[in-house]
Order: sequence, then C-alpha cells, then structure tokens
Amino acid sequence: MTLSLSTTESNVSTSKSGAGATSAHSAWPGLIEAYRPYLPVSENTPVVTLKEGNTPLIPVPTIAEIIGKQVKVFVKYDGLNPTGSFKDRGMTMAISKAKEAGAKAVICASTGNTSAAAAAYARRGGMRAFVVIPDGYVALGKLAQALLYGAEVLAIKGNFDQALQFVRDMANDYPVTLVNSVNPYRLEGQKTGAFELVDALGDAPDWLCIPVGNAGNITAYWMGFCQYHQLGKSDRLPRMMGFQAAGAAPIVNGAPVAHPETIATAIRIGNPASWQQAVAAQQSSKGEFNIVTDAEILEAYRLLACQEGVFCEPASAASVAGLLKVKDQVPQGATIVCVLTGNGLKDPDTAIKHSNNNSFKQGIEPNLKAVAEAMGF
Amino acid sequence: MTLSLSTTESNVSTSKSGAGATSAHSAWPGLIEAYRPYLPVSENTPVVTLKEGNTPLIPVPTIAEIIGKQVKVFVKYDGLNPTGSFKDRGMTMAISKAKEAGAKAVICASTGNTSAAAAAYARRGGMRAFVVIPDGYVALGKLAQALLYGAEVLAIKGNFDQALQFVRDMANDYPVTLVNSVNPYRLEGQKTGAFELVDALGDAPDWLCIPVGNAGNITAYWMGFCQYHQLGKSDRLPRMMGFQAAGAAPIVNGAPVAHPETIATAIRIGNPASWQQAVAAQQSSKGEFNIVTDAEILEAYRLLACQEGVFCEPASAASVAGLLKVKDQVPQGATIVCVLTGNGLKDPDTAIKHSNNNSFKQGIEPNLKAVAEAMGF
Repeated sequence: MTLSLSTTESNVSTSKSGAGATSAHSAWPGLIEAYRPYLPVSENTPVVTLKEGNTPLIPVPTIAEIIGKQVKVFVKYDGLNPTGSFKDRGMTMAISKAKEAGAKAVICASTGNTSAAAAAYARRGGMRAFVVIPDGYVALGKLAQALLYGAEVLAIKGNFDQALQFVRDMANDYPVTLVNSVNPYRLEGQKTGAFELVDALGDAPDWLCIPVGNAGNITAYWMGFCQYHQLGKSDRLPRMMGFQAAGAAPIVNGAPVAHPETIATAIRIGNPASWQQAVAAQQSSKGEFNIVTDAEILEAYRLLACQEGVFCEPASAASVAGLLKVKDQVPQGATIVCVLTGNGLKDPDTAIKHSNNNSFKQGIEPNLKAVAEAMGF
Repeated sequence: MTLSLSTTESNVSTSKSGAGATSAHSAWPGLIEAYRPYLPVSENTPVVTLKEGNTPLIPVPTIAEIIGKQVKVFVKYDGLNPTGSFKDRGMTMAISKAKEAGAKAVICASTGNTSAAAAAYARRGGMRAFVVIPDGYVALGKLAQALLYGAEVLAIKGNFDQALQFVRDMANDYPVTLVNSVNPYRLEGQKTGAFELVDALGDAPDWLCIPVGNAGNITAYWMGFCQYHQLGKSDRLPRMMGFQAAGAAPIVNGAPVAHPETIATAIRIGNPASWQQAVAAQQSSKGEFNIVTDAEILEAYRLLACQEGVFCEPASAASVAGLLKVKDQVPQGATIVCVLTGNGLKDPDTAIKHSNNNSFKQGIEPNLKAVAEAMGF
C-alpha cells in the first residue's frame, strides 16, 4: 500500500499524480477547498463536502443562432451538483460553519431543493436535519429525496409563512442552526458559481442571465463577480439579467405577491428574502429584471432538452427564456451565460407532461418493413 | 470583447486563465478532449459533448468504518453525468464516431439510461434518435427523459429480445447507426472512468466494486485500468469485484436467466452482451462475481443516502451492498472504489417507496412547544 490519500473530508484528493490526460486535471476537492482563500473558513472549519461545484459550462449553439450577432451563449449546468441543484454550493458552507460552531442539528422551512441539500449535508456532517413544512400542502414525492437523505420532516398546521417563522423561532430558542436562505454562509458558498465562470472563460461574461425567486442566487453571483474583479481576476463585471415567472414577479411588479403561481416551482416566491440585495446587484451592474411566462419557460425547457441535450428544472429554463425574450438588446459578439439552477430529474411530473408524446408510436407490427415505415424510411 | 473562447464543440474551455483558486482548476473539456490520446478519435472526429465525465470521487467513511481494517472507501458518483448515468461516457464516443461516419440517425433498444443518453447526444449532434421498445411493457414515466430529449420512440409488438433484433436488422439494412452496447465505441468511452480513478488516487485502487448487468461497464473499466497500467500511469491493477442482483445473476449462475427480476432495474439483465469479456476481466484481475439480494441493495441504498449524503439508483447501490457482503475478504488498509452508475433521481418511485416515512410527522400544533416536542427537545 503506497497511497497517501486519506478519507477524512479535509485532505482528500490532494495527492493527484498529475499524470492524467493531455492537460493535467486535478481532482476537484469541493468548492470550499478550491476557493478557500475567498471564503469565510479557517483551518478550524470541518469541511463537509460532497465535491459540489465545478459544474459543466456547456455551449448552446442553437440558442446563440436564434440570437445571431455572433454571440456566444453557455449554460452553467448547476443541476449536476450532488443533490441536483445549486443549493449545494451554499449548503456545504452553511453546514460546515454550523459544525464548526458545534451544532448537532439544523433546521429549515422548505419543500424543495433546499430541504434535499440541507438533509444531505447535515447527515453527512453527522447532524440531525429538521425540515418544517405547512401541514397538508406538500406531496410525499416532493419530500422523498430529503426523507431518503434522513431528514426529519415536521408538518405544522398553518401556511408556509408560519412555517418559516417557526424555524426562526426554534433557531433562536433551541440548539438548532437555521440553514434557510437568511443564513449568511449560504450566499458565501453560492458566490463560487461566479468564480467558476471567470476561471473557465478567462473573464466575466457580458451578461449573466439568472432565474430569480428568493433572489439569493443573483445576489450571490454578483458578490462573486465583484470579489473576483476586486482581486484582479477579471477585467470586467457582467450585466445581471434577472428573470421572474409572470405569476411570481414581486421584484418586477414592485410589490409582494400573495399567491404566487408558476410551473417553475423553484422560483414560486411571493416575497423574496434577498429582495433589496438583488435590486442593488441589478442597479450596480446596469442589469434588468424581466418577466417570462410559463409558456415561454416551457418552450425554453423543451428547446434546451431537444436541441442541446440539456435537461433542467422548469425554473432553470427561465434564464434561457428570458434571454430569448430580450434578445434584441444583446450586443454584437457578446458572451452570455445562463444559469441552470436545477436538474430536470427533480421534476419528473413536468417532464412526463411536457415530453413530446407525438414521438411515441405504439403498436407497430413486428416486421422490418413496418418498423422502417414508422421511422420514415 | 477580448474573450478568445469559441462555442464550437471542439475548442471550448481551453482559454482558462489559470487564475482560479488555491490550485489552478482548468475547466473540464469533456472526456474525449481530456483523454484524446487514449481514445480512437482523430482531428476529423466532430466531438459531441455535454462535458461528461470528471465525476466526483467521494469518500464514504461510514462504509469504511463498517469494514474496519483501516480501509479507505470511495464512491465514484457517475450519476452526476449530464443525463444522470455512466452511459454518457460511452455515448459521447458512440455519437461522435457516428457523426464522423456521416450518420443522420441512431437507434437503440432500451427503456432506461441508454435511451436517455442516446437521445441527448444524438439530438445535440444534430441527428435523429430512435428508441425501440416492446409494445405495452414500458410506462411513459420511464421514457419521459428520452422523449424530452427528442427521441422518437417505437413500440413494437413483441418482447425485448425481438426489439433488440429489430434494431440490429435496421442498422444493417438502413442508414441508421446502432448505439446499443454492441457498439464498440461505447466501451472506449466508458473506460475513462478508470482513467479518472487513477488520476485522482495516484494509482489504481486495490478493489473496484461494480454493479454487473449487461457487463459492459466492468469490461470497460478493466480496459481502462490495463491501458493506463501499460502506459505506466499506475503501478498496479485492481481486483475487479462484480456484483449481480440475486434475481438477475446469469454470470454468477453460469446460465442465462429467462425472466430476470430485481428492484435494481438498471441491472435487470438475463443474458449480458459483454458476458465473456466480463469473465475475462474477473479472471485476469483475480476478481470475483457475487450476488446481492434486493434487500441488501436497498439497505446500501438507504445507508448511502442517509449516512453519506449520496443518492444513487438502486442498481448502483449493488456495488456497496456487495462490498459489505464480502467485507471479510477485504485486506488490511485497502483502498476501494465502488462505482455508482446512476443518479437516484432517475428512479423517483423507489425513493418514495423506500424513504423513511417514520420521519414524517404530520398535524403538529402551531406553537413552539409542540414543535420543540416533536423535535425531541
């Protein structure tokens, strides 16, 4: 046995031989180790990681062609994080810091990607993970991932706002750490998405197109771009182009939405936690907020899958739908990145409902001629 | 505009500034570009990529503790490939070579991961993707991902073996390229999983534990380990430890299984295409084939999710279940890698059915004391 590799969280994957491939690709150590100097961690922080981050930046030439003007368009496919969404970026930070502070349990109010990420990282860090939801409003299917990760789910009589208040109160009065989006370490982790874009492209893109729900991710990306710019790692800053679903567009409308509705459930938020910071990011970057309809979101969702081979959550497709909507504003030759926040596999119901059933031909006779005919030969 | 990055498939992600992080992490170009010298491609091959490969190698200390003997255990989480399974490794090769040969369409018989990967890569490469299935046996949910990617699905009267015969015949008689597992480029792509392990660990592991269904992946990993060893990139070769589900164990039993049955649908194969090659890999590596029951698979599936934060397909968990089953044979201090072939999100039904419902407490009264009590405080 000559391997020097340890299985402790903090020093794995550093013994890479460098022997690999045409250019040496070191094994990715997770985003905290990769960006340690730029994050609020110390050598005392126990790093809880699933090797999140380092997600693919995929060119989408079909989208670029629709826009024309020799633009270059990429999607940042954050659905390939370990639990299937960008939430892992924030959660590796939030859980590592909770563990550093001695927490034995964490709590959040969430029915979706946050609960899955919180459960996976908390359990990996040896903590209990409590997920609070409003009683009677959430199907088991939405919670299956969190439950499988070992979350303890509490369904409390009341609505989602009340559930949110309970987790805040519990975190105040009991030894349990709040990992909802108000946890400041979440944004610190999420800002690494911007670092990865600059590292991959050699500079910031001209535009960053991003879905806006709770508005934490647009805030975090802007933090990351500004930090890297101040460090001299990029020459420019992008315009932050945020897109909200038409039925859940409080920032665009300038007022909270009491009953937000959209097929893009991950951005179905009526009163964003990071509202002010998101507006600051938009204004500082000379960006814009715009609305996309569910129909536009679904069109982009199908286009990405069927033309580019990229399968994302409906909410993620809002970034591409938005880009297509404001394409006349795109400058000649611009480099644009659209953030795809979640994996399409997270929402099988939408996939089934909106897959192209016309391409499903049944009852074909078992002879070669019939098969060839069905194929159009 | 100063960016030199192009959106054409073949030269993306090479302009990385190297400015990133504590150690420079170059953006991953996809496995063909990363391992070009070791793959049957030339500069004339149009590379169709979704930046597959480079999947996380995650330490699983809970599993290591169960085994004891100071072993180091990792999972290779190939479910984080773009379409959610290891099939992408083979498909980027198969589709790129099909495109190089001028193919306008590809065909496969598959109801699962292969059809999704074939559809995504074929459509991305501008080709039609035909998926042939037996009529009446496949639920729409299983096909939703492939359909969304733009596959054209043909349900032919007959069984799966007949479907397989039709795709072979179609590929012989019509201008459509077969991308089922008999396509030799599939294994070429899949062998890069072994390259990544050696690159990350600095040498081959002592054991490779891998689920065995059609037996292509164990064959491909062995090809990769041997090739890297011959090139001097590793000092040793691993023992190949293959695991089949009890109800679908033709190799262990030494005879095809007419009606294979297991919850691990991705390895529910009665007559593996790469049977002989897999046996050769096992024998050359002094490895073993063993059986794991569905109960053992599910236990490993839950253990991985709940203790390690890793959510995989049931079939993937066969590698960990198998390792635990033969743990008495593990040598002191060994380094072991278990391959997790698919993402748990691929099989939501199993997740829902086997998530821990006891952790779901409903109807809690909306006051802090009741909530705290439900949490055990």
